Amino acid sequence: MRFAKGHGTGNDFVILVDPGDDQGLSADLAARLCDRRAGIGADGVLRAVRTDALAAAPNGSAAGSPAGPVPEWYMDYRNSDGSPAEMCGNGIRVFARYLADQGLATRPAFTVATRSGFRRVRFEDDGNITAEMGAVTVLGPGRVVVGGPGGVTCEGLRISVGNPHLACLVDAALAGFDLTRPPRLDPAQFPHGGNVELVRVTRPGAAEMRVHERGSGETRSCGTGAVAAAAAAATAAGQDRGSWQVSVPGGQLTVTLEPGAAWLGGPAVIVAEGELDDTWLAAATVGIRRPA
Amino acid sequence: MRFAKGHGTGNDFVILVDPGDDQGLSADLAARLCDRRAGIGADGVLRAVRTDALAAAPNGSAAGSPAGPVPEWYMDYRNSDGSPAEMCGNGIRVFARYLADQGLATRPAFTVATRSGFRRVRFEDDGNITAEMGAVTVLGPGRVVVGGPGGVTCEGLRISVGNPHLACLVDAALAGFDLTRPPRLDPAQFPHGGNVELVRVTRPGAAEMRVHERGSGETRSCGTGAVAAAAAAATAAGQDRGSWQVSVPGGQLTVTLEPGAAWLGGPAVIVAEGELDDTWLAAATVGIRRPA
Repeated sequence: MRFAKGHGTGNDFVILVDPGDDQGLSADLAARLCDRRAGIGADGVLRAVRTDALAAAPNGSAAGSPAGPVPEWYMDYRNSDGSPAEMCGNGIRVFARYLADQGLATRPAFTVATRSGFRRVRFEDDGNITAEMGAVTVLGPGRVVVGGPGGVTCEGLRISVGNPHLACLVDAALAGFDLTRPPRLDPAQFPHGGNVELVRVTRPGAAEMRVHERGSGETRSCGTGAVAAAAAAATAAGQDRGSWQVSVPGGQLTVTLEPGAAWLGGPAVIVAEGELDDTWLAAATVGIRRPA
Repeated sequence: MRFAKGHGTGNDFVILVDPGDDQGLSADLAARLCDRRAGIGADGVLRAVRTDALAAAPNGSAAGSPAGPVPEWYMDYRNSDGSPAEMCGNGIRVFARYLADQGLATRPAFTVATRSGFRRVRFEDDGNITAEMGAVTVLGPGRVVVGGPGGVTCEGLRISVGNPHLACLVDAALAGFDLTRPPRLDPAQFPHGGNVELVRVTRPGAAEMRVHERGSGETRSCGTGAVAAAAAAATAAGQDRGSWQVSVPGGQLTVTLEPGAAWLGGPAVIVAEGELDDTWLAAATVGIRRPA
């Protein structure tokens, strides 16, 4: 079985091309591929399947997605624990890069079917790839306690980018915050938890961000987090549209806010491609205990 | 540039075959290969070079190593930060597996040149690979405080396996110990720090172990740590030789103690092989910031 590995600003993925949906992808194999010691290692798996090979037509009616013809490719995205997931802003950009590298997508802009509906991607002149992220909703003010034991209380905006965020504009240097432990959100505001962004506006239209992702800890990048950071910065500037450069530990992203939609642009890199070892693929997980 | 990825009980490696020493391996490339997000991801890099292509004859005079003819292959081992390292017990087993898989080593036992001298490896009938680890020296009693804030004091044995260990036999369930923070060794006993093993003997000749590696935190496996654990268990049993099954979070290892040498046996798995992307290989590290 062939695979590739790629990343977008430090969010990394194993990519499988399965045009006819012949290989499929079990939760167990996805988790084993993402195992950073006993597998390839990644934040998730992106499997490319032709939509005409799918048993059921993909859903194109999600909020913020255009109607129109069914895309050629479906992105079957799995989290590192093997569970299916809706969409991934850095993932879909790496997905598009690999399809183009392989000659499987030849136009400078096209649409990908995902579990969140159809999402547009486009190749920029500077080599970056931009992807449609769907609607952004600013829900209202919120707060979080960062670091321990007493911590620092940060005020922010509760923002939905399909998933829940609290984006806090701060004046202090981001390096001074302790994100080694989960920030404490108000359970009344975030009954299912959420991602926390610490955002510092560095000049008009530009900000830097650190992010703590629900369930993952601090990460080098988070696509929806960058969108939430830009939405918070734009709201503070009295804007509801425009482009923001968002600097994350893994690199530089561009977020463009439009009424009803946001776009995420940035680098998408293929690191390597190859073949999974047959013995490894056939092996049961016996003897390989997952980390606690 | 071709590569493979493999692991031994959860210690993982990028493997490069460079028979003529033509590619070389810079510290920067080794570190980029080991980067778990923006590279392949591994604990270290194993580069296979034919000894007759080396500018200087490899050193075969290290303690515990046999003299004799110069081996065919040299293992250029690098840590994940790119720095050169002496030897790696799980690494050399994965190295041997890949050479055999590729038809580059055809005998059931052979010798590998390393920065620690010549080390013997052999293929077992059960598919495992055993490697010579050099001499083990029990230095005397020591103690460590595990967990925080007050912690639990554990008594153990200071053991050198080329690197410094404190192996503590405990009666309590290993899962109950907190290794999320570095155990506090006595600086007078460990001026350069050390690895700490918590070891529980489960039956005669068998033990389970958790390990905190100096500079790395808790890991799924540590070859020299397993040897230290077996030496501590053997000492407590009044033995100076014999075989021990050592169960680590990443799997099962066999340590055989002999006068003047120890051997480490266990699984060695190739996960995948492939080709590094030319664009990735050529890219500067601009835009990819290392994790803090």
